[in-house]
Amino acid sequence: MAETTYDNSNIFAKILRGEIPSHRVYEDDAVVAFMDVMPQGPGHTLVVPKAPSRNLLDADPAVFGPLFANVQKVARAVKNAFGADGVTVMQFNEPASGQTVFHLHVHIIPRFEGIPLKPHSGQMEKPEVLAENAGKIRTALGS
Amino acid sequence: MAETTYDNSNIFAKILRGEIPSHRVYEDDAVVAFMDVMPQGPGHTLVVPKAPSRNLLDADPAVFGPLFANVQKVARAVKNAFGADGVTVMQFNEPASGQTVFHLHVHIIPRFEGIPLKPHSGQMEKPEVLAENAGKIRTALGS
Repeated sequence: MAETTYDNSNIFAKILRGEIPSHRVYEDDAVVAFMDVMPQGPGHTLVVPKAPSRNLLDADPAVFGPLFANVQKVARAVKNAFGADGVTVMQFNEPASGQTVFHLHVHIIPRFEGIPLKPHSGQMEKPEVLAENAGKIRTALGS
Repeated sequence: MAETTYDNSNIFAKILRGEIPSHRVYEDDAVVAFMDVMPQGPGHTLVVPKAPSRNLLDADPAVFGPLFANVQKVARAVKNAFGADGVTVMQFNEPASGQTVFHLHVHIIPRFEGIPLKPHSGQMEKPEVLAENAGKIRTALGS
Protein backbone atom coordinates (compact mmCIF):
# COMPACT_ATOMS: atom_id res chain seq x y z
CA MET A 1 0.00 0.00 0.00
CA ALA A 2 3.01 2.32 0.49
CA GLU A 3 3.83 5.00 -2.08
CA THR A 4 7.43 3.86 -2.07
CA THR A 5 9.49 1.44 -0.02
CA TYR A 6 10.89 2.14 3.42
CA ASP A 7 14.22 4.02 3.37
CA ASN A 8 16.33 3.30 6.46
CA SER A 9 18.30 6.54 6.08
CA ASN A 10 15.37 8.60 7.41
CA ILE A 11 16.06 10.74 10.50
CA PHE A 12 13.98 8.61 12.91
CA ALA A 13 15.78 5.43 11.82
CA LYS A 14 19.04 7.25 12.62
CA ILE A 15 17.67 8.26 16.04
CA LEU A 16 16.58 4.65 16.69
CA ARG A 17 20.09 3.45 15.82
CA GLY A 18 21.62 6.13 18.07
CA GLU A 19 23.44 7.74 15.14
CA ILE A 20 21.99 11.15 15.93
CA PRO A 21 20.89 12.49 19.33
CA SER A 22 17.33 13.01 20.60
CA HIS A 23 15.71 14.10 23.85
CA ARG A 24 14.43 10.66 24.87
CA VAL A 25 11.71 10.21 27.45
CA TYR A 26 11.03 6.46 27.17
CA GLU A 27 12.27 3.27 25.55
CA ASP A 28 11.23 -0.38 25.65
CA ASP A 29 11.49 -3.36 23.29
CA ALA A 30 8.83 -1.97 20.96
CA VAL A 31 9.21 1.82 20.90
CA VAL A 32 11.31 4.89 21.56
CA ALA A 33 9.66 8.18 22.66
CA PHE A 34 11.43 11.53 22.28
CA MET A 35 10.69 15.24 21.99
CA ASP A 36 9.58 16.70 18.63
CA VAL A 37 12.23 19.32 17.77
CA MET A 38 9.57 21.50 16.08
CA PRO A 39 6.87 21.30 18.74
CA GLN A 40 3.29 22.39 18.06
CA GLY A 41 3.10 23.12 21.79
CA PRO A 42 5.21 22.60 24.93
CA GLY A 43 5.71 18.90 25.63
CA HIS A 44 5.04 17.71 22.06
CA THR A 45 6.39 14.15 22.10
CA LEU A 46 6.72 11.44 19.43
CA VAL A 47 6.29 7.71 19.97
CA VAL A 48 8.11 5.69 17.31
CA PRO A 49 7.98 1.90 16.87
CA LYS A 50 11.34 0.22 16.39
CA ALA A 51 9.89 -1.94 13.61
CA PRO A 52 10.43 -0.28 10.22
CA SER A 53 7.47 0.97 8.21
CA ARG A 54 6.93 4.08 6.13
CA ASN A 55 3.77 4.99 8.03
CA LEU A 56 0.55 3.42 9.39
CA LEU A 57 -0.58 2.22 5.96
CA ASP A 58 2.27 -0.27 5.41
CA ALA A 59 2.94 -1.21 9.06
CA ASP A 60 2.75 -4.79 10.33
CA PRO A 61 -0.54 -4.73 12.34
CA ALA A 62 1.35 -6.48 15.18
CA VAL A 63 3.04 -3.16 16.02
CA PHE A 64 -0.19 -1.38 16.93
CA GLY A 65 -0.92 -2.95 20.32
CA PRO A 66 2.47 -2.15 21.89
CA LEU A 67 2.73 1.17 20.03
CA PHE A 68 -0.60 2.59 21.27
CA ALA A 69 -0.26 1.15 24.78
CA ASN A 70 2.89 3.30 24.90
CA VAL A 71 1.10 6.26 23.29
CA GLN A 72 -1.40 6.02 26.19
CA LYS A 73 1.43 5.82 28.76
CA VAL A 74 3.22 8.85 27.31
CA ALA A 75 -0.06 10.79 26.78
CA ARG A 76 -0.95 10.37 30.47
CA ALA A 77 2.58 11.42 31.46
CA VAL A 78 2.66 14.57 29.29
CA LYS A 79 -0.80 15.56 30.54
CA ASN A 80 0.42 15.28 34.13
CA ALA A 81 3.87 16.76 33.47
CA PHE A 82 2.47 19.94 31.90
CA GLY A 83 -0.82 20.17 33.82
CA ALA A 84 -2.58 20.02 30.46
CA ASP A 85 -6.36 20.10 30.00
CA GLY A 86 -6.27 17.59 27.15
CA VAL A 87 -4.06 15.73 24.71
CA THR A 88 -4.16 15.65 20.91
CA VAL A 89 -2.91 12.48 19.19
CA MET A 90 -2.11 12.74 15.46
CA GLN A 91 -0.52 10.49 12.88
CA PHE A 92 0.19 11.60 9.31
CA ASN A 93 0.43 9.38 6.24
CA GLU A 94 2.17 10.68 3.12
CA PRO A 95 3.12 14.28 2.25
CA ALA A 96 -0.48 15.32 1.47
CA SER A 97 -1.19 14.68 5.15
CA GLY A 98 1.86 16.62 6.33
CA GLN A 99 4.17 13.63 6.81
CA THR A 100 7.81 14.75 6.55
CA VAL A 101 9.71 11.80 8.07
CA PHE A 102 8.93 8.43 6.52
CA HIS A 103 9.11 6.14 9.55
CA LEU A 104 5.80 5.56 11.38
CA HIS A 105 5.42 7.96 14.32
CA VAL A 106 2.60 9.20 16.56
CA HIS A 107 2.39 12.83 17.73
CA ILE A 108 1.28 13.47 21.33
CA ILE A 109 0.57 17.12 22.09
CA PRO A 110 -0.58 18.50 25.47
CA ARG A 111 -3.47 20.92 25.01
CA PHE A 112 -4.64 23.88 27.06
CA GLU A 113 -8.08 25.55 26.99
CA GLY A 114 -8.16 28.37 24.42
CA ILE A 115 -4.62 27.80 23.08
CA PRO A 116 -4.52 26.61 19.44
CA LEU A 117 -1.85 24.26 18.11
CA LYS A 118 1.15 25.88 16.47
CA PRO A 119 1.71 24.83 12.82
CA HIS A 120 3.18 21.39 12.08
CA SER A 121 6.87 21.55 11.07
CA GLY A 122 7.12 25.13 12.29
CA GLN A 123 10.00 26.55 14.32
CA MET A 124 12.89 24.62 15.93
CA GLU A 125 12.72 24.68 19.73
CA LYS A 126 15.85 25.50 21.78
CA PRO A 127 17.69 22.31 22.88
CA GLU A 128 17.67 23.44 26.54
CA VAL A 129 13.88 23.80 26.47
CA LEU A 130 13.49 20.33 24.92
CA ALA A 131 15.87 18.88 27.53
CA GLU A 132 13.89 20.47 30.38
CA ASN A 133 10.56 19.26 28.97
CA ALA A 134 11.93 15.75 28.45
CA GLY A 135 13.01 15.75 32.10
CA LYS A 136 9.47 16.68 33.22
CA ILE A 137 8.00 13.81 31.18
CA ARG A 138 10.56 11.29 32.42
CA THR A 139 9.67 12.33 35.98
CA ALA A 140 5.95 11.88 35.24
CA LEU A 141 6.70 8.44 33.76
CA GLY A 142 8.59 7.55 36.92
CA SER A 143 11.65 6.59 34.86
CA MET B 1 -6.88 9.42 34.61
CA ALA B 2 -10.22 10.51 33.10
CA GLU B 3 -11.70 13.90 33.88
CA THR B 4 -15.01 12.24 34.71
CA THR B 5 -16.42 8.77 34.37
CA TYR B 6 -17.76 7.24 31.16
CA ASP B 7 -21.39 8.18 30.39
CA ASN B 8 -23.16 5.53 28.28
CA SER B 9 -25.73 8.04 26.99
CA ASN B 10 -23.16 9.58 24.60
CA ILE B 11 -24.09 9.58 20.91
CA PHE B 12 -21.51 6.94 19.87
CA ALA B 13 -22.72 4.56 22.60
CA LYS B 14 -26.22 5.01 21.12
CA ILE B 15 -24.88 4.30 17.62
CA LEU B 16 -23.07 1.17 18.93
CA ARG B 17 -26.35 -0.02 20.51
CA GLY B 18 -28.22 0.70 17.26
CA GLU B 19 -30.48 3.22 18.99
CA ILE B 20 -29.66 5.90 16.42
CA PRO B 21 -28.65 5.42 12.80
CA SER B 22 -25.21 5.84 11.25
CA HIS B 23 -23.65 5.31 7.83
CA ARG B 24 -21.68 2.18 8.73
CA VAL B 25 -18.77 0.97 6.64
CA TYR B 26 -17.41 -1.84 8.82
CA GLU B 27 -18.11 -3.85 11.97
CA ASP B 28 -16.40 -6.72 13.76
CA ASP B 29 -16.22 -7.98 17.35
CA ALA B 30 -14.00 -5.08 18.43
CA VAL B 31 -15.10 -1.99 16.49
CA VAL B 32 -17.70 -0.21 14.41
CA ALA B 33 -16.65 2.22 11.66
CA PHE B 34 -19.04 4.86 10.30
CA MET B 35 -19.03 8.22 8.52
CA ASP B 36 -18.42 11.41 10.51
CA VAL B 37 -21.56 13.54 10.00
CA MET B 38 -19.46 16.73 10.11
CA PRO B 39 -16.63 15.65 7.81
CA GLN B 40 -13.37 17.60 7.60
CA GLY B 41 -13.10 16.27 4.07
CA PRO B 42 -14.89 13.74 1.80
CA GLY B 43 -14.66 10.23 3.22
CA HIS B 44 -13.96 11.28 6.82
CA THR B 45 -14.61 8.07 8.77
CA LEU B 46 -14.58 7.20 12.48
CA VAL B 47 -13.42 3.92 13.99
CA VAL B 48 -14.98 3.32 17.40
CA PRO B 49 -14.14 0.45 19.78
CA LYS B 50 -17.13 -1.33 21.27
CA ALA B 51 -15.47 -1.36 24.69
CA PRO B 52 -16.50 1.70 26.70
CA SER B 53 -13.95 4.38 27.56
CA ARG B 54 -14.12 8.16 27.64
CA ASN B 55 -11.08 8.50 25.38
CA LEU B 56 -7.56 7.09 24.89
CA LEU B 57 -6.41 8.14 28.35
CA ASP B 58 -8.77 5.84 30.29
CA ALA B 59 -9.03 2.98 27.76
CA ASP B 60 -8.10 -0.62 28.56
CA PRO B 61 -4.79 -1.01 26.65
CA ALA B 62 -6.13 -4.32 25.30
CA VAL B 63 -8.38 -2.34 22.92
CA PHE B 64 -5.51 -0.73 21.03
CA GLY B 65 -4.30 -3.70 18.95
CA PRO B 66 -7.67 -4.53 17.38
CA LEU B 67 -8.66 -0.83 17.20
CA PHE B 68 -5.62 0.31 15.22
CA ALA B 69 -5.47 -2.81 13.04
CA ASN B 70 -8.96 -1.71 11.97
CA VAL B 71 -7.86 1.93 11.65
CA GLN B 72 -5.21 0.68 9.20
CA LYS B 73 -7.79 -1.40 7.30
CA VAL B 74 -10.21 1.53 7.00
CA ALA B 75 -7.41 4.04 6.23
CA ARG B 76 -6.24 1.90 3.29
CA ALA B 77 -9.84 1.57 2.10
CA VAL B 78 -10.65 5.31 2.26
CA LYS B 79 -7.38 6.12 0.47
CA ASN B 80 -8.31 3.74 -2.33
CA ALA B 81 -12.02 4.65 -2.37
CA PHE B 82 -11.34 8.37 -2.83
CA GLY B 83 -8.06 8.16 -4.74
CA ALA B 84 -6.48 10.17 -1.93
CA ASP B 85 -2.81 11.20 -1.79
CA GLY B 86 -2.57 10.63 1.96
CA VAL B 87 -4.53 9.98 5.13
CA THR B 88 -4.62 11.95 8.39
CA VAL B 89 -5.35 10.01 11.59
CA MET B 90 -6.40 12.05 14.65
CA GLN B 91 -7.67 11.26 18.12
CA PHE B 92 -8.77 13.94 20.58
CA ASN B 93 -8.75 13.70 24.37
CA GLU B 94 -10.86 16.11 26.41
CA PRO B 95 -12.54 19.36 25.27
CA ALA B 96 -9.24 21.33 25.18
CA SER B 97 -8.22 18.96 22.39
CA GLY B 98 -11.52 19.36 20.52
CA GLN B 99 -13.18 16.19 21.83
CA THR B 100 -16.97 16.57 21.66
CA VAL B 101 -18.20 12.96 22.05
CA PHE B 102 -16.88 11.15 25.10
CA HIS B 103 -16.46 7.62 23.77
CA LEU B 104 -13.01 6.79 22.35
CA HIS B 105 -12.92 7.28 18.57
CA VAL B 106 -10.28 7.66 15.87
CA HIS B 107 -10.69 10.06 12.94
CA ILE B 108 -9.53 8.90 9.50
CA ILE B 109 -9.47 11.63 6.86
CA PRO B 110 -8.44 11.19 3.21
CA ARG B 111 -6.07 13.98 2.15
CA PHE B 112 -5.39 15.54 -1.22
CA GLU B 113 -2.34 17.61 -2.25
CA GLY B 114 -2.95 21.31 -1.59
CA ILE B 115 -6.38 20.88 0.04
CA PRO B 116 -6.44 21.83 3.75
CA LEU B 117 -8.68 20.10 6.27
CA LYS B 118 -12.03 21.72 6.97
CA PRO B 119 -12.56 22.70 10.64
CA HIS B 120 -13.40 19.98 13.18
CA SER B 121 -17.09 19.94 14.16
CA GLY B 122 -17.98 22.21 11.25
CA GLN B 123 -20.94 21.76 8.93
CA MET B 124 -23.32 18.78 8.76
CA GLU B 125 -22.97 16.82 5.50
CA LYS B 126 -26.08 15.80 3.51
CA PRO B 127 -27.20 12.24 4.37
CA GLU B 128 -27.19 11.22 0.69
CA VAL B 129 -23.54 12.28 0.35
CA LEU B 130 -22.60 10.33 3.48
CA ALA B 131 -24.50 7.29 2.20
CA GLU B 132 -22.73 7.45 -1.17
CA ASN B 133 -19.29 7.84 0.46
CA ALA B 134 -20.01 4.95 2.87
CA GLY B 135 -20.86 2.81 -0.16
CA LYS B 136 -17.50 3.65 -1.81
CA ILE B 137 -15.62 2.67 1.36
CA ARG B 138 -17.58 -0.58 1.79
CA THR B 139 -16.71 -1.44 -1.81
CA ALA B 140 -13.02 -0.70 -1.17
CA LEU B 141 -13.19 -2.89 1.97
CA GLY B 142 -14.71 -5.65 -0.14
CA SER B 143 -17.64 -5.90 2.28
